[in-house]
Amino acid sequence: MTTRHTDDLPDPGHRIAASFAKQGLMATLGAELGDVSPGAVEIVLRPRAAVSQQHGFVHAGALSAIADTAAGYAALSVMPADSGVLTTEFKINLLAPATGELIRARGRVVKAGRTLIFAQTDILAESEGRERLVAYLTATLMVIAGRDGISD
Amino acid sequence: MTTRHTDDLPDPGHRIAASFAKQGLMATLGAELGDVSPGAVEIVLRPRAAVSQQHGFVHAGALSAIADTAAGYAALSVMPADSGVLTTEFKINLLAPATGELIRARGRVVKAGRTLIFAQTDILAESEGRERLVAYLTATLMVIAGRDGISD
Amino acid sequence: MTTRHTDDLPDPGHRIAASFAKQGLMATLGAELGDVSPGAVEIVLRPRAAVSQQHGFVHAGALSAIADTAAGYAALSVMPADSGVLTTEFKINLLAPATGELIRARGRVVKAGRTLIFAQTDILAESEGRERLVAYLTATLMVIAGRDGISD
Amino acid sequence: MTTRHTDDLPDPGHRIAASFAKQGLMATLGAELGDVSPGAVEIVLRPRAAVSQQHGFVHAGALSAIADTAAGYAALSVMPADSGVLTTEFKINLLAPATGELIRARGRVVKAGRTLIFAQTDILAESEGRERLVAYLTATLMVIAGRDGISD
Repeated sequence: MTTRHTDDLPDPGHRIAASFAKQGLMATLGAELGDVSPGAVEIVLRPRAAVSQQHGFVHAGALSAIADTAAGYAALSVMPADSGVLTTEFKINLLAPATGELIRARGRVVKAGRTLIFAQTDILAESEGRERLVAYLTATLMVIAGRDGISD
Repeated sequence: MTTRHTDDLPDPGHRIAASFAKQGLMATLGAELGDVSPGAVEIVLRPRAAVSQQHGFVHAGALSAIADTAAGYAALSVMPADSGVLTTEFKINLLAPATGELIRARGRVVKAGRTLIFAQTDILAESEGRERLVAYLTATLMVIAGRDGISD
Repeated sequence: MTTRHTDDLPDPGHRIAASFAKQGLMATLGAELGDVSPGAVEIVLRPRAAVSQQHGFVHAGALSAIADTAAGYAALSVMPADSGVLTTEFKINLLAPATGELIRARGRVVKAGRTLIFAQTDILAESEGRERLVAYLTATLMVIAGRDGISD
Repeated sequence: MTTRHTDDLPDPGHRIAASFAKQGLMATLGAELGDVSPGAVEIVLRPRAAVSQQHGFVHAGALSAIADTAAGYAALSVMPADSGVLTTEFKINLLAPATGELIRARGRVVKAGRTLIFAQTDILAESEGRERLVAYLTATLMVIAGRDGISD
């Protein structure tokens, strides 16, 4: 008799929080891990001079960093425990200047294959209780399997 | 008689150095401005824990930040003095883990239109005197004209 | 008193059907215009040898053609009557082999600016009453205003 | 003694010509295979109403079709004989209206990995003996190995 254990996949919350803590760039930017559920991960960032471009908006590179991380961990959250994740490509469209009190990058898996996972991240700026879509990212993530010591 | 003044365009070196100094993110990442010439700009970054992802490689977001900046300033270097630059979109392909002693992002203008400029950035990792291509970015930059106080 | 006339914008159905009929490529591919509403346009294509790649699947180029057209007309459907539309860039991710009885490209406007419009198209394959997502396109469309004779 | 046989790889010319002939879409568009060498493939297309968009330019979808095919076959030309090629994603930037006597899509491999190959295609319009760059494509191609009967 075979039984499918729903815990074949590790708890995405612990796995992703542990991996997030290893990302030096996230600490450098002051980004924080938000909600995590299977197939969906949120990263938040507070706009300030330390992450700005020349006009004072949040830099496209900082938006990309949190949006790519959100997409990557959304993908990792649906991978087996002995797999790691690498980004192979992403495109980001900048739709409006990123300003406000908080930036939220909400990544979600759109299609999971065995080797490649396709994910999409909405980047939202929160200001006076209102959310605006300021950027949109699509990414291809690769499943890294069978590499000693790589499980994130 | 008509005379073409080569100084119709501001000196790209001064303009871009002044703008680069206003980008809080570049200081936060420890990125530095390299060679600047009309239509081509280089940004360099030293790999270290502060810009890493979970496996210790340079984070795709940090690569994107310097490659987007190199593309944007390459575009700005061919724009009139009263114009500013905004990125509308970019795609980055990650070709190999970014490790080594130094990362160089070399941006260049491929095609300059009146409203949109298309640029491409090679991201190279230098290690023991050897350069490897680790990522490739293409970007669309927008010319921002007639906005008070925006000239970068 | 001000009155917003909903007919400030031309009827998207007529405008888009007339423009679609001028696209030689759509006739060559055998593509047809589906549902049209403000901000959303569908194009359909029947898989067959004439639009195949070497393994018999629908060619990525044929998928791109209908998905770009769906995105472009979704954008046109929210533009003033004297404007035309041009694609400035798109990315397509191929998620599964495109086979089946019918391919539907469903484009929708995500964010409309004055000069640039960002749109997204789902490409779905219909087979035995089931729909699968086989590709995903994001596009930037440009509003072309003030060019004599261009209104599509 | 070990001998490296240069014929470990099949003659790219025959392999690609045979595969190109199986692509129904290329015949439908009237596209033709041009120069083929290891890592580089050219496809040509004659602008005419049958491949046009609504303003009479060559449709972005037709440009994408030949540029993706050029990138894909450039990748196939450096793959082992028992492998096939699939596109996983591409981005195309449209830089100028595609008009003229002939369109040439020149694809080349930028970086070849074991599973993924990154390629770039210039799309040039030839008119009165002059060539202009009208579009620029970057693509990720996947190596399909060990599938019975797939060698292109």
